[in-house]
Amino acid sequence: MNFIDATTQEVDAAVREAHLAYLSYKNLSGKKKGEFLRAIADEIEALGDTLVQTTMRETNLPEARVISERGRTTGHCRMFAQLVEEGSWVEARLDSAQPQRAPLPRPDIRKMLVPIGPVIVFGAANFPLAYSTAGGDTASALAAGCSVIVKAHPAHAETSELVAGAIKKAGTKTGMPPGVFQHLHGMSFEVGQALVNHPLIKAVGFTGSLVGGKALFDLANKRPEPIPVFAEMSSINPVYLLPESLAKNFEKTAVMLANSITQGVGQFCTNPGLVIAVDNDGLKKYIKRLSEEIVKAPAGTMLHQGIANNYHKRVAETLAQKGITIEAQGAEGSALQGRATIVSVAAKDFLKNPMLAEEVFGPLSLIVKCADINELNAVVARQHGQLTSSIIGEEAEIEKHQNLLNLLKEKAGRLIINGVPTGVEVAPSQNHGGPYPATTDSRFTAVGTDAVKRFVRPVAFQNFPESVLPPELKTGNPLNIWRMTDGNWSK
Amino acid sequence: MNFIDATTQEVDAAVREAHLAYLSYKNLSGKKKGEFLRAIADEIEALGDTLVQTTMRETNLPEARVISERGRTTGHCRMFAQLVEEGSWVEARLDSAQPQRAPLPRPDIRKMLVPIGPVIVFGAANFPLAYSTAGGDTASALAAGCSVIVKAHPAHAETSELVAGAIKKAGTKTGMPPGVFQHLHGMSFEVGQALVNHPLIKAVGFTGSLVGGKALFDLANKRPEPIPVFAEMSSINPVYLLPESLAKNFEKTAVMLANSITQGVGQFCTNPGLVIAVDNDGLKKYIKRLSEEIVKAPAGTMLHQGIANNYHKRVAETLAQKGITIEAQGAEGSALQGRATIVSVAAKDFLKNPMLAEEVFGPLSLIVKCADINELNAVVARQHGQLTSSIIGEEAEIEKHQNLLNLLKEKAGRLIINGVPTGVEVAPSQNHGGPYPATTDSRFTAVGTDAVKRFVRPVAFQNFPESVLPPELKTGNPLNIWRMTDGNWSK
Repeated sequence: MNFIDATTQEVDAAVREAHLAYLSYKNLSGKKKGEFLRAIADEIEALGDTLVQTTMRETNLPEARVISERGRTTGHCRMFAQLVEEGSWVEARLDSAQPQRAPLPRPDIRKMLVPIGPVIVFGAANFPLAYSTAGGDTASALAAGCSVIVKAHPAHAETSELVAGAIKKAGTKTGMPPGVFQHLHGMSFEVGQALVNHPLIKAVGFTGSLVGGKALFDLANKRPEPIPVFAEMSSINPVYLLPESLAKNFEKTAVMLANSITQGVGQFCTNPGLVIAVDNDGLKKYIKRLSEEIVKAPAGTMLHQGIANNYHKRVAETLAQKGITIEAQGAEGSALQGRATIVSVAAKDFLKNPMLAEEVFGPLSLIVKCADINELNAVVARQHGQLTSSIIGEEAEIEKHQNLLNLLKEKAGRLIINGVPTGVEVAPSQNHGGPYPATTDSRFTAVGTDAVKRFVRPVAFQNFPESVLPPELKTGNPLNIWRMTDGNWSK
Repeated sequence: MNFIDATTQEVDAAVREAHLAYLSYKNLSGKKKGEFLRAIADEIEALGDTLVQTTMRETNLPEARVISERGRTTGHCRMFAQLVEEGSWVEARLDSAQPQRAPLPRPDIRKMLVPIGPVIVFGAANFPLAYSTAGGDTASALAAGCSVIVKAHPAHAETSELVAGAIKKAGTKTGMPPGVFQHLHGMSFEVGQALVNHPLIKAVGFTGSLVGGKALFDLANKRPEPIPVFAEMSSINPVYLLPESLAKNFEKTAVMLANSITQGVGQFCTNPGLVIAVDNDGLKKYIKRLSEEIVKAPAGTMLHQGIANNYHKRVAETLAQKGITIEAQGAEGSALQGRATIVSVAAKDFLKNPMLAEEVFGPLSLIVKCADINELNAVVARQHGQLTSSIIGEEAEIEKHQNLLNLLKEKAGRLIINGVPTGVEVAPSQNHGGPYPATTDSRFTAVGTDAVKRFVRPVAFQNFPESVLPPELKTGNPLNIWRMTDGNWSK
């Protein structure tokens, strides 16, 4: 099926409609917004096998993965529904007036988070459901009270169209203002550019490449009114293997990492692209065992030809770098497939070659062999911002490496002990974000309930009569939410 | 006294020291950080009259104002001390492991806010104490666990030097790592530029002009690693006078606004530079009564010659615009003084002239006369982002103008009913911020406890053994802070 790029006029019309819808949608109760989000989940489920088959056809993802991703998508819609139905997420703060205070009376001030305005969401290639049309960005922005315009990812435009239809149906069924959600197609950068540049747009959500995310970030900052861009872009998710653990657990660790590296043909933002260890007997055993797993790995069909071409090009570039050794490769496969590839390099060569620290999207993983723990620390110090950093170690050994933990905390949004970075739990405690270039704003997460905070800002209400205060801030706490009143939390 | 600009080498040395200090300071307990902040307050007080006299000499501010500003400064140092001693501000979230969950086990994840890294703070001309060396930016960044380098405002370099000495003394007394706070001078833009461009710097705090703040914002976004800039820049703080109230309360309203406009020679970011009303008999009475107050206003000495020159130039520019009428002026005064000036313009001319919507820093206020409520709404729609918007109205009248409130909420960080924007209460409920150009990031406040959130980011800890978890996240809650565990708040 072919979709036609939105024209400049269509972009303008969509944004104006989104703005109008926003002005009434933002004032709906959390209960009404929750109804809408739950209806979205229901309507996505109602698409049944049509959605599963379409997604599979457009993305080459296997059925089990598509079904599980659909579950994650409806799951986060319902999670955000629950969040806004409960209501405490607005961080209400009330400070009482003190009319007698000297030298000046204190006014009554109350504060809460309010939506930021119409939001643009760019569909992600590698999560056609969970980070695209009804993905985490859309669901959290709608939960916040923003209207949303999704620019479909051209690689799965039909899937996107189906999900958009479900969201629109949910909007009609629950009486949402028309235009609260809209869906546009665009193969060209111009459509995205026109959307981000529109003065009525107030924030952007994006998951994709560093080049794409950075271009949107620069565009948004050059507007007469700069707006926040939450772009999740580039991470190689280093895994540090500590020596005592490696000597004992090389087998278990190798199997665990082989699975993580090849899972989903390595097409996850949390794929472990870098493994770092002191070069000793344990590491040799680990590499041997890992290689046994990798050579068995079948070639996996990638999301689309562009991603496969890019993977092949980046693997070839990596192999051409000074000091690179191929440790193991999986089955070769077709032009559309990705071949699992494990390479290694001495830390001294790694430290001299910034290119080796850049993300390769696919099942490539580089082992950095350090002469000693000092060289390992030097590798840590040179890391860019990451979504995750992992340490595999014995508990007593990790306690001895507090300094390493201390440094890694500066470099990543999530630290993992004795686990792999793939598998991003959707939970209030999740942080899917990290220092640049992992994201453009390390202060926010893209996964979990706190993702709603990307699309809100605080507003203080001073000396407001009860009748015009938002329900969240009325004296009697009619919504029964957690609030901080005169410095104390209560409900 | 003359201070010498820091050289590039001095900037680099200071940042490296700040980075080193940060790596140990960030791990100190909230109790230790609180001790440091309280000692800063004590040491500022210990400077006694020397500080008051120096500030008065450098800024032309009267003694009472300087003393009250000092109280505000020591007050917020102690407020942030209390915040970090109590500890719940880190937004701890814990989600338990579910090893039996199908199809995949759920890992243990815990999350908290951690400091972002070394921060640059630029001293503000108009708040030599409360928004300069030990100002809200410095105090909140230190509370967050960041190290701070202050670039002194050249207009009050000696005051800044005195306060810096107090902070350093407090650091020594409470055993802080040397370099956790540093102080540099710089007349030229180059010093600030070198600081913001240094790769080890992770955030910037600024209060000042739109031109200055925007330049820092652009600089920070062009870095190889962009960093957040919290710049509070430009606001004209519109006040809307509703007709019923005006007819009844024109006298009280005129006196209240005359005070707010002339207070501190209008040198507040919350000065009411714009008053908007439907042109009727009430407005005429209001203007008459306001004018009686303004003509009595003595000329006020401004902060420094540059600010006075700029005010005179901007007043002359305003008077030269089409349709501008002078309603009243105060005493003329010297070249270093600002003359209170009330001008008016018809809404139709205002709407055609964007220059009239720009901030004039000083005691100038423009009355926009609207033909009817529709024209008033058109003026609202055209407002830039503001720190505040105020409505003066009868309660019943305000209830009828929900639509106006709804629109104003989109334009400002704080809404005030029957009050003036000047006087920014320091409280958890305060929001001192707003959409661009009021600030560069409307998602954060510069005043109140939540100001700490500008200098932190979340980090998730997955599958961490108790021994290496931060105390805030240990299972037994040893710090006895409010945390969200498996979705529920408890202490």
